[in-house]
Amino acid sequence: MSSENTTLATGTLCLRRVGIDTYHENVAYLHRDCAIYRAEGFQALSKVEVRANGRRILATLNVVDDERIVGCDELGVSEDAFAQLQVPDGHLATVSQAEPPESIPALFRKINGERLGHEDFQAIVRDIADLRYSKIELTAFVVACNRSELDREEVYFLTEAMVASGRRLDWHEPLVVDKHCIGGIPGNRTSMLVVPIVAAYGLVFPKTSSRAITSPAGTADTMEVLSNVELPFDQLTEIVRAHRGCLAWGGTADLSPADDVLISVERPLSIDSPGQMVASILSKKMAAGATHLVLDIPIGPTAKVRSMPEAQRLRRLFEYVAQRMHLSLDVVITDGRQPIGRGVGPMLEARDVMQVLENDPAAPDDLRQKSLRLAGRLIECSPDVRGGDGFHIARDILDSGRALARMQAIIKAQGEHGFKHQHPPLGALRFEVPAESDGTVIGIDNLQVAQIARLAGAPKVKSAGVDLMRKLGDIVRRGEPLYRVHAAYPSDLEFARQACQRNCGYRIGSTEQMPRVFVEF
Amino acid sequence: MSSENTTLATGTLCLRRVGIDTYHENVAYLHRDCAIYRAEGFQALSKVEVRANGRRILATLNVVDDERIVGCDELGVSEDAFAQLQVPDGHLATVSQAEPPESIPALFRKINGERLGHEDFQAIVRDIADLRYSKIELTAFVVACNRSELDREEVYFLTEAMVASGRRLDWHEPLVVDKHCIGGIPGNRTSMLVVPIVAAYGLVFPKTSSRAITSPAGTADTMEVLSNVELPFDQLTEIVRAHRGCLAWGGTADLSPADDVLISVERPLSIDSPGQMVASILSKKMAAGATHLVLDIPIGPTAKVRSMPEAQRLRRLFEYVAQRMHLSLDVVITDGRQPIGRGVGPMLEARDVMQVLENDPAAPDDLRQKSLRLAGRLIECSPDVRGGDGFHIARDILDSGRALARMQAIIKAQGEHGFKHQHPPLGALRFEVPAESDGTVIGIDNLQVAQIARLAGAPKVKSAGVDLMRKLGDIVRRGEPLYRVHAAYPSDLEFARQACQRNCGYRIGSTEQMPRVFVEF
Repeated sequence: MSSENTTLATGTLCLRRVGIDTYHENVAYLHRDCAIYRAEGFQALSKVEVRANGRRILATLNVVDDERIVGCDELGVSEDAFAQLQVPDGHLATVSQAEPPESIPALFRKINGERLGHEDFQAIVRDIADLRYSKIELTAFVVACNRSELDREEVYFLTEAMVASGRRLDWHEPLVVDKHCIGGIPGNRTSMLVVPIVAAYGLVFPKTSSRAITSPAGTADTMEVLSNVELPFDQLTEIVRAHRGCLAWGGTADLSPADDVLISVERPLSIDSPGQMVASILSKKMAAGATHLVLDIPIGPTAKVRSMPEAQRLRRLFEYVAQRMHLSLDVVITDGRQPIGRGVGPMLEARDVMQVLENDPAAPDDLRQKSLRLAGRLIECSPDVRGGDGFHIARDILDSGRALARMQAIIKAQGEHGFKHQHPPLGALRFEVPAESDGTVIGIDNLQVAQIARLAGAPKVKSAGVDLMRKLGDIVRRGEPLYRVHAAYPSDLEFARQACQRNCGYRIGSTEQMPRVFVEF
Repeated sequence: MSSENTTLATGTLCLRRVGIDTYHENVAYLHRDCAIYRAEGFQALSKVEVRANGRRILATLNVVDDERIVGCDELGVSEDAFAQLQVPDGHLATVSQAEPPESIPALFRKINGERLGHEDFQAIVRDIADLRYSKIELTAFVVACNRSELDREEVYFLTEAMVASGRRLDWHEPLVVDKHCIGGIPGNRTSMLVVPIVAAYGLVFPKTSSRAITSPAGTADTMEVLSNVELPFDQLTEIVRAHRGCLAWGGTADLSPADDVLISVERPLSIDSPGQMVASILSKKMAAGATHLVLDIPIGPTAKVRSMPEAQRLRRLFEYVAQRMHLSLDVVITDGRQPIGRGVGPMLEARDVMQVLENDPAAPDDLRQKSLRLAGRLIECSPDVRGGDGFHIARDILDSGRALARMQAIIKAQGEHGFKHQHPPLGALRFEVPAESDGTVIGIDNLQVAQIARLAGAPKVKSAGVDLMRKLGDIVRRGEPLYRVHAAYPSDLEFARQACQRNCGYRIGSTEQMPRVFVEF
């Protein structure tokens, strides 16, 4: 009893790092016979607050019956939680029932269908960014804000709150450009061409990208084939100062941290409502310090947006919020009927990008054309460029080799990986998928191509993916290869092969059956 | 490499019980260097399927860096998960990526606002009962079904699916009665009087109750002061056969198991939508084998239902679904302006119940009257009783001591605890809360009284709670005690005292200010 009483009186336990990686969820472990556990009446899975050396974190409680994991006078914490506390193993720590987050009443009002105001969103998003929300509360917020539950003013409040939840970069420049695509089109690696072109023109273009979440490669994954992408912020600033642009992973910069937390719930529910998409994208771009943004909305039968009216509604919502945030926004609606370029997967896409930069005759022309158009739009943000001149300026920069030189400078500055794009070390295991009949390629399913590339190992295995040998409108004969799949491991190859057998992703027919998309530019 | 390859080829690992209690959430632990973990490309927190000896469970994956917790050729599982597998430590087991639950497309349709059909609800509720839903998916379902999102046909489908998700008791009797209150009124222990009265009359009344979730005592907590309540199902059947009634905890019987899973998410979100309340209550009662149900809906300023139109809407929804389920339902709307009886907390409430059964002149009359009325309604379910005669029959049974005798028989059969209600061993630490002015008691806040009793330790500390010495309409003088708080631990007493200082829960005024409630019976 006396050691129990000491523990109880002081309320302190010895902190112990428990070697369990619980990912983003902090877990605290208390022994069932721990005096504090019994006195406080904690429940398993309840939220507790752990304090050590002036820092405090919230954690979910697990109860332990094994002294080898935690003893009765110890407070175990999972690896991530331990790292956040920044104290050595054995340091004193206290544990108590966590106060419910302040914004819970506002959350409950949203669940009940009320419209929330500026202050409500600020409070909710602050609690989310501070990891004070449980998975249950997070999901409730996301589902309650789904569909048409947020009006456009609320989307603005949410976006504003998400920017305020993290760091906001300031490049000390009047004009900072950025581009973004809403996603869903494999191989769409235009950023790696637009950045060197526009930076070579002279505009500041500090591009931070994400890694793939559900796709076979994000820009950060593909750029990583060529150079480092995880750069400390000081180095990033230095590179942008020297070269006007960079191509880095955005995860280290603490930009709109609430967004990352919300995505962890939206993704498994396949929730991608317009309001949440707008808040997510614009908050990241505002936090990254952009003043001018070109936004790419691809439409097509297997794209995220499938009709022009839907694309127009989404465009208006983006424009409304951007204007409230004082961000200059140019939305372009593009052809999303099929993947862009030939390669799908980090190394294959890096090859395509380098071919375009080198003006290689084998370079995929759709990737070149789309990149030039987007670069042109951005160049027209410059006050001394006339509307319509941007494309030609971009083309001159690309054709003259200045874009390639700028890309090489950026690669060197970020830390070169020595990728040989003429002979890319693609996954050695491979198979080809042949056409099953004569005819014209009338459909390529973006979702299925992405799925096959992922099963083959992309993006984790950089050398894996799908290399498209035929595109929409191409005429093929039965037995001719449509695409080649690369993998590094036999089981990956087998998974990809099975997926191709279920659905190869291509449709062959007659030319007039090909879906037409009327795009704006 | 060779041991890795063996593990990979067979796909098996040694099962290890990890002494961590993760409550209802199964967790699997794999070492970061485990060959299967690396080959399968699992992600932390992803759902995995564990198979051993023909059984399979779903679990959330945690990655471990400490060989003392799990080794590279071991598959750790949390305590609950280990129990479900029913194999010894060290048994061979396999782990694989879990297939997403079959009903996910239906869930996504509900999230997008679609109306679901019979089959959809069956599939969703089956997956929920089988613990195939993550917390995220569960919450999404609950929030998407909140508010007016379910029409009454959908509420019926949901109720039906919840009954089908578990066991359904069959008492082999044409008439099986039950009663239920929607909750929210402290001290409302009518079941412990209604059961012995109605069972003594001769109707079969196998009452299973819950423990407190957010209240200071559930019927099961209070009954546990008098006798055991956790009874194996065979013993329960035996008791009901011998005595026509029982008062047991319903948690062991596997009745509407999906309900318990849903509640684990609804509670922290304070979601208590009409549709979910109806499905929860009626599914439990149908599964318990009831044919006739009397349902108590209290209304009052601090009750769950606060107006007569709201009560009527809720009553119609209950009636519609009950009729579709072929359950005979009698809804009574009762006075919920204040707690029922005097005691709030398990032991205090047990004292009140025994006083009423013994016809003690000190017994709280409101508890006696309400119980007689509810018992009368149930007795009228009997085909040979005329409408209006039930109350008098019930009163005769109570006054004659037959109800007390039946209660004593049930207590003895369940396993007597020897509670001395004349001298209840109430929490020795106590304080009284005095009136702050002269006047009439015009308001008693159900929520605040419940909160004070919980802070004092109820229901975990059976001897803790609040003993009301004044009720609505009583005339008090300044300084006279309104109620007494009992606790067993100093810290509990202090928490309760602070809550009383913030808000004592009583309002004193002039008689005409007292809220009037027009109830139906």
